[in-house]
Amino acid sequence: MLLNAERWLYLPAVALLVAAPVHADEGMWLPNALPLATLQAKFGFQPTPAWTEHLQKSAVRFSTGGSGSLVSPDGLVMTNHHVGSDMLAKLSTPERDLLATGFLATSRAEELPCPDLELNILWEIEDVTARVNAAANGLTDLSAAGAAKRKAVAAIEDESNTASGLTSEVVALYQGGRYHLYRYRTYRDVRLVFAPETAIAFFGGDADNFEFPRYDLDCCFFRIYEDGKPLVPTHHLAWDVGEGKDGAREGELVFTWGHPGSTNRLYTADHVAFLRDVEEPLSLKRLWRNEVRLASFMGRSAENARIAREDFFGTQNGRKATQGLVDALQDPALVAAKRAEETALLAQLTGKPEAARFERGRAQVKGSLEASKRLAADYFALERRFRGGDLAQIARTIVRLQAESEKPSADRLPEYGDANRASLEAMLYSPAPIYAALEVERMTSWLSSLAEDRGLDDALVSKLLAGKSPRARATELVHGTKLTDVQARRKLDATDPMIAFVASIDADARRARKAWEDEVDSPQKLGYADIAAARFAALGDSVYPDATFTLRMSYGTVQGWTSETSERVPAFTTIGGTFDRAKERAGEAGFELPQSWLDARAQLNTATPFNFVSTNDIIGGNSGSPIVDVDGEIVGLIFDGNLDSLAGDVVFEITRNRAVSVDARGMLEAMRVVYGAGVLVDEMTSARKP
Amino acid sequence: MLLNAERWLYLPAVALLVAAPVHADEGMWLPNALPLATLQAKFGFQPTPAWTEHLQKSAVRFSTGGSGSLVSPDGLVMTNHHVGSDMLAKLSTPERDLLATGFLATSRAEELPCPDLELNILWEIEDVTARVNAAANGLTDLSAAGAAKRKAVAAIEDESNTASGLTSEVVALYQGGRYHLYRYRTYRDVRLVFAPETAIAFFGGDADNFEFPRYDLDCCFFRIYEDGKPLVPTHHLAWDVGEGKDGAREGELVFTWGHPGSTNRLYTADHVAFLRDVEEPLSLKRLWRNEVRLASFMGRSAENARIAREDFFGTQNGRKATQGLVDALQDPALVAAKRAEETALLAQLTGKPEAARFERGRAQVKGSLEASKRLAADYFALERRFRGGDLAQIARTIVRLQAESEKPSADRLPEYGDANRASLEAMLYSPAPIYAALEVERMTSWLSSLAEDRGLDDALVSKLLAGKSPRARATELVHGTKLTDVQARRKLDATDPMIAFVASIDADARRARKAWEDEVDSPQKLGYADIAAARFAALGDSVYPDATFTLRMSYGTVQGWTSETSERVPAFTTIGGTFDRAKERAGEAGFELPQSWLDARAQLNTATPFNFVSTNDIIGGNSGSPIVDVDGEIVGLIFDGNLDSLAGDVVFEITRNRAVSVDARGMLEAMRVVYGAGVLVDEMTSARKP
Repeated sequence: MLLNAERWLYLPAVALLVAAPVHADEGMWLPNALPLATLQAKFGFQPTPAWTEHLQKSAVRFSTGGSGSLVSPDGLVMTNHHVGSDMLAKLSTPERDLLATGFLATSRAEELPCPDLELNILWEIEDVTARVNAAANGLTDLSAAGAAKRKAVAAIEDESNTASGLTSEVVALYQGGRYHLYRYRTYRDVRLVFAPETAIAFFGGDADNFEFPRYDLDCCFFRIYEDGKPLVPTHHLAWDVGEGKDGAREGELVFTWGHPGSTNRLYTADHVAFLRDVEEPLSLKRLWRNEVRLASFMGRSAENARIAREDFFGTQNGRKATQGLVDALQDPALVAAKRAEETALLAQLTGKPEAARFERGRAQVKGSLEASKRLAADYFALERRFRGGDLAQIARTIVRLQAESEKPSADRLPEYGDANRASLEAMLYSPAPIYAALEVERMTSWLSSLAEDRGLDDALVSKLLAGKSPRARATELVHGTKLTDVQARRKLDATDPMIAFVASIDADARRARKAWEDEVDSPQKLGYADIAAARFAALGDSVYPDATFTLRMSYGTVQGWTSETSERVPAFTTIGGTFDRAKERAGEAGFELPQSWLDARAQLNTATPFNFVSTNDIIGGNSGSPIVDVDGEIVGLIFDGNLDSLAGDVVFEITRNRAVSVDARGMLEAMRVVYGAGVLVDEMTSARKP
Repeated sequence: MLLNAERWLYLPAVALLVAAPVHADEGMWLPNALPLATLQAKFGFQPTPAWTEHLQKSAVRFSTGGSGSLVSPDGLVMTNHHVGSDMLAKLSTPERDLLATGFLATSRAEELPCPDLELNILWEIEDVTARVNAAANGLTDLSAAGAAKRKAVAAIEDESNTASGLTSEVVALYQGGRYHLYRYRTYRDVRLVFAPETAIAFFGGDADNFEFPRYDLDCCFFRIYEDGKPLVPTHHLAWDVGEGKDGAREGELVFTWGHPGSTNRLYTADHVAFLRDVEEPLSLKRLWRNEVRLASFMGRSAENARIAREDFFGTQNGRKATQGLVDALQDPALVAAKRAEETALLAQLTGKPEAARFERGRAQVKGSLEASKRLAADYFALERRFRGGDLAQIARTIVRLQAESEKPSADRLPEYGDANRASLEAMLYSPAPIYAALEVERMTSWLSSLAEDRGLDDALVSKLLAGKSPRARATELVHGTKLTDVQARRKLDATDPMIAFVASIDADARRARKAWEDEVDSPQKLGYADIAAARFAALGDSVYPDATFTLRMSYGTVQGWTSETSERVPAFTTIGGTFDRAKERAGEAGFELPQSWLDARAQLNTATPFNFVSTNDIIGGNSGSPIVDVDGEIVGLIFDGNLDSLAGDVVFEITRNRAVSVDARGMLEAMRVVYGAGVLVDEMTSARKP
């Protein structure tokens, strides 16, 4: 699953860079800078401005960390089941387990309002590079320059927000080589319409995750409402399914329009080695720990299993993705190739001033990595991975919201700026259920992880534990706080134990964040800005920036691949293959088909294509992206990459890297035959033109 | 499960110490130093020398890391299923999966010879303290003194071995306060007689492991053969089951005779804090990692699942035990109590020279902990946790066996001494199956873990990987070596890639081991010897040494407990309760009863006691210990401790710490009714007197 892992957190943008020379089908392209020449030369295809606008305004970004698209004239939004599953969990109770049973609203009245989902559609893009850069004019101190630019960004966002009424966000592309202001139409009345059972959405479980051949109905449908009525969108996608339509074909040129979360393809070789030796191994350790702890927690009761399932699947998914990346990184050839690329670049720049600029940038990045080793423990513990559960997050938001509200918007921590206020409040006052047992487990786990890493006598750990064991302390905080009640979140009650707990470390957390921004983030960005300038000089500007969880287009063709062990993997699977796979792995976890499928078997057209692979360049965050043909019509729904795609964070390798989609034909066949959702299928595929 | 986790490795004895004042029912007592006065005073029970000898010579130590006992006049040995499971796995094939199906030999001819199991029965004990200490007389250098003692120990073992024909082993008790020479009768013709299915032996799986109430038939029976015929033992245990027998009763005084692996109850407070903050968190991280990686490996195919199951269960078990210990340690009260004990001890020694001796020892231990932080990475990677799979272990044994054989026995690494030669060869030339897929996974995992910990550019990692990725390197080594063939192990072929690989790091590994012995182990032992002397001065000698995987007696009474949340946990479960539990957790992993039990349900006496708890002080290694009454008759079979017992490594706390046994009555009922093993039951319970 291509979930964007860090969705809960405010993430200062990581190093985002201009790309190296682009391989075939590589690239996550900006909507306002598509690779027109390449598409023309290679495929004889020339997107028109109307085509581009249609795709852009049909694409939807999910606040839960994925992508989607408008797919009917009545505001239906298609995404992956695993993007919607967070809402499915929040809409479930011990008696109504939507992840287990699936859901179909048989009328508009039955559609279920989501407690805190926000959908965004990119409406306008404006280049604000000059204004952001001007803010730092004349400032030589790195951290002062960084702070001035952050302040300018906040001011631009606030102004735009007020003036346009659209959610406004400045995106640092090419690591400050460009700043673009993105304006979104935002929707918060979103209702669940249809979801299949997890058993078929995630058929094959952890074993088949990131693998192919694959047989997953990883889809889910919501509807946007506006003023209490279904949205009539200005744009929505049509389907390449039905009479006169041919669906995806082997070799066909296809496009994804979605929101890849983050890539690091233009990290320096030193930085990739740091990922390999320090950062990713640390992530893996954390994921291993969480996976085992959550499995233990879930083993204690059926209700525990239900309430922790979302956390658990997310953890397993992150672990498999990170393991794949580490496996790729631990081939010594990878960093060697990065070093060779740098040498070649420098050779190309011989005699130009950019050669020295590149070397200066590289050294600065290296210095920032050393600083990060020194500062990471505090920064991750207290700020970036502050992970004591939902109640602790809520308490921190309350504490900071009060403190930040007293400052002008541009001086605040960015996530508390006016432009983000509505999103923040939607999250803070969400009526989504909070489970005490899971909260105690999360807080215990977090406290215990700090004690493991820092020792029990560490000053911070002592302060957090207050003389108790992690579990005793967690129990006291979770059972003592009133924040489970949404009303109690509307004012800061300093006597609330969770509030007091979070307040007691807020100064430490802010200090750790500032140190990181000043000594790691700002120097690193400056270093990469130098490197980017050098790369531009050598390679021109026909390049794409690293992913930023903003809208990108990728192109590719539908095709299988030949594995490392010379096995030919075909491009398509069929609905019938699902039953074969279930039989082959009978009795193993993740391979039990839901009753609905067993019941509908005889009625299904087993030859219908079910999943397929293509060479599109995607990554976590692309989950739920539509995959369309040259007519902009839906042929499938992106939901995964194969194992070979997991190196995609740092390299794109077309030989074996594949994107995995649900085929539009299989999806509609299953909806109609297995789930009796013909009304929805008709709504999407009826004659009304987009 | 109380498995002794480190069974594959030669483990230099860890700090073993004289105990603090003993709490009620606390203690793992030496067979030649039972707490006679306490037993008399508290229970009015006085063991006779004959009683003691009978229990000692009925007790069996398993080379796979557990305990057992002789239980019939024809050499039947009872232990836990999870102690025998290593053999069950080695005797299985894809077609004959004994862990899944269980096994019953319906005649002696059907009993299955085990490939490399060694059973030892403690026959004689001799105090050799004076001779060992004399070897270091006049030596002031710590490492020289340590080496001289190790050499004296090897000489004593070799002499005894030659003179007596018995396997001879010098045990350092009270950390060198005493050295005892143990002589064992050793048996290597051991055959599998009966084992139930894992589904009932480990009913409840990881979820119920270390929990109670419990419903496990965790038993397994082997038979010792001598000269091709069943052993007629001089001692074996009778059963407190059948006519005129009353079995275990609530409140009854009961004893275990078994082989607790290791405890650290008399570590200094600094050392316990080191366990808490450094050593155990590192173990947990390794266990989390292995658990997830093995689960992934097993998910790839049914055959992978079969061949890795033993590793996986062992890892899960170790993880749950270690997590329980860390949870206990992370209560700040625990180390605080240890510090208070030390202060009290010093107060008691005021004015005596032992006060200074204690403080000196404590400082020396603290110094050794600092050294261990510096040396642990190399020592654990290359020597103590050299974990590249069975083939790599075999290759190392071959390489070292040749090098060590050229030296006098007393100068060798102890595991290559003459006294250990037969055991070593039994292991080295074992015909047990070796699976290439699992070997590649183990080697990949080990290489990858070093790369995670040290970085890919580390000199050792570079040497090990030889320019390849961990998986590519592992594949090349495993598929290139001839060591899967037992005959190929009889000579050192330097061109074999696995031999060459291991030989290339042997000097590094030996250097790391020597540094550890000189700078950590020797100073630590000396420090603890001082501390032990001080404790003797304050507390006398009515104390027991920490566990050493040698025979110990513990006593206690059959009784339930009241949980932290004030829930009363009764002492017994019944066979009928098993079916209730299966129903309650239907559909969850580990709770599916085998068909044999479902079929036999109507015939079983559901009121028969199945599992029970008692206050006996046990720990990993005690698995398979018989639990007997004052007549020395079997009332049960130890197989686990409860969650509260997991702090037992460092403290014994009688309020809630409980040992968990299979009740003898439930065991025999199930054998007779479910498995048709009446012949075996009759053999064990017939009139022939022990």
